[in-house]
Amino acid sequence: MTNPTAAMLVIGDEILSGRTRDANMHYLAQELTKRGIDLCEVRIVADVHEKIVHAVHALSSDYDFVFTSGGIGPTHDDITADCIAEAFGVSIDVRDDARALLQAHYDRQGSELNAARLRMARIPAGATLIENPVSIAPGFTVENVHVMAGVPSVFQAMVASVLPTLTGGAPLLSQTLRVQRGEGDIAGPLAELAEAFSDLSIGSYPFQKDGVYGANIVIRGSDGVRVDAAMAQLAEMFA
Amino acid sequence: MTNPTAAMLVIGDEILSGRTRDANMHYLAQELTKRGIDLCEVRIVADVHEKIVHAVHALSSDYDFVFTSGGIGPTHDDITADCIAEAFGVSIDVRDDARALLQAHYDRQGSELNAARLRMARIPAGATLIENPVSIAPGFTVENVHVMAGVPSVFQAMVASVLPTLTGGAPLLSQTLRVQRGEGDIAGPLAELAEAFSDLSIGSYPFQKDGVYGANIVIRGSDGVRVDAAMAQLAEMFA
Repeated sequence: MTNPTAAMLVIGDEILSGRTRDANMHYLAQELTKRGIDLCEVRIVADVHEKIVHAVHALSSDYDFVFTSGGIGPTHDDITADCIAEAFGVSIDVRDDARALLQAHYDRQGSELNAARLRMARIPAGATLIENPVSIAPGFTVENVHVMAGVPSVFQAMVASVLPTLTGGAPLLSQTLRVQRGEGDIAGPLAELAEAFSDLSIGSYPFQKDGVYGANIVIRGSDGVRVDAAMAQLAEMFA
Repeated sequence: MTNPTAAMLVIGDEILSGRTRDANMHYLAQELTKRGIDLCEVRIVADVHEKIVHAVHALSSDYDFVFTSGGIGPTHDDITADCIAEAFGVSIDVRDDARALLQAHYDRQGSELNAARLRMARIPAGATLIENPVSIAPGFTVENVHVMAGVPSVFQAMVASVLPTLTGGAPLLSQTLRVQRGEGDIAGPLAELAEAFSDLSIGSYPFQKDGVYGANIVIRGSDGVRVDAAMAQLAEMFA
């Protein structure tokens, strides 16, 4: 049995210009790994209509789940909802339940639900809303695409709303051995180990810091007995 | 005159599993912005042959420059060089100049240039080497694709070797105004400003921290006079 697969689409000029360092991808990667959903690909695209539509098409047909972050606020550069509607060939309009959520929120705040804010109640036809306990304006799900905000605190709250509704797989277990030897010295035996345990993923991640170099060898798999067995052999190799 | 475009391809299971937080993308984004090269898309894929080949194809035909990081070490999971060769339909073999670099390096270290290390001298036919002053094993360029290491110190050194050889454009200038008002309040006037300065990119990046919320409005463009003019109007709007 294989785990469900996932992709993430990050929408935002500010990541690509180097102004902001993305935090959502790293967060989502860790959450999905815990639930046995394999994050297989991430794309980051600018706030450009056709780029977003193209990426949504490609990813939603290639993977079981797609998660997007960014571009669902009230300003002119927030174009994600329209792009999702176009990608799935559905209409988009202000939806009553989303409008009611916003109306109640801005009433409590004593702010006006103006035209800009009302844009956040525009939801593609047939979507399911994703709860946003932080700032109320909802995310939404269309088919296998979960559309969430870019602000990290809001993104994380939406992830917490969505993930319990998805069926995951066996959580990915991982064990790491830190070896203070050059990768070139360990590569031969490591390749043999990887062949003997071809049901596991065995990765070597070199480091080099303050004159110390070596590699972290990471063994990953969902069968704990196999991971243990491979780690025992690995430890013996480089004892 | 428009700036050259670029994409980045990050190769590595360790980013997708959440084990490691990528640092190379943020670094490259900043370096490219300084040189007037527009980073338009980033993809992160696992160490899977066909995924890498597919992404290299797609990105190298869509953008002027492609930069890859990861997967060029000596271990069994380092498959980037072979994938690049396949993507461009060229052969790959140990190359004399790359072997000589490694031989001299390991001689100095008193280590052996074994079969695993020699894999790092396998270079696709017709490639140009990229200098690696940190750990010697070179990167390489095939057509418009620059193939670099994943270890951040090595990646950065290779970027420093490559970038001076590329023709950039006008550096992207940016000015930011921090506004402590909800995006919903500023969205209307901001959209009008964006329309009046359609030659510039005007982005709104909301924040929410410790009960304070607002947005950073970022105006970007390569014409300093226009950026100044837009910022003057923006400051007047939200004074």
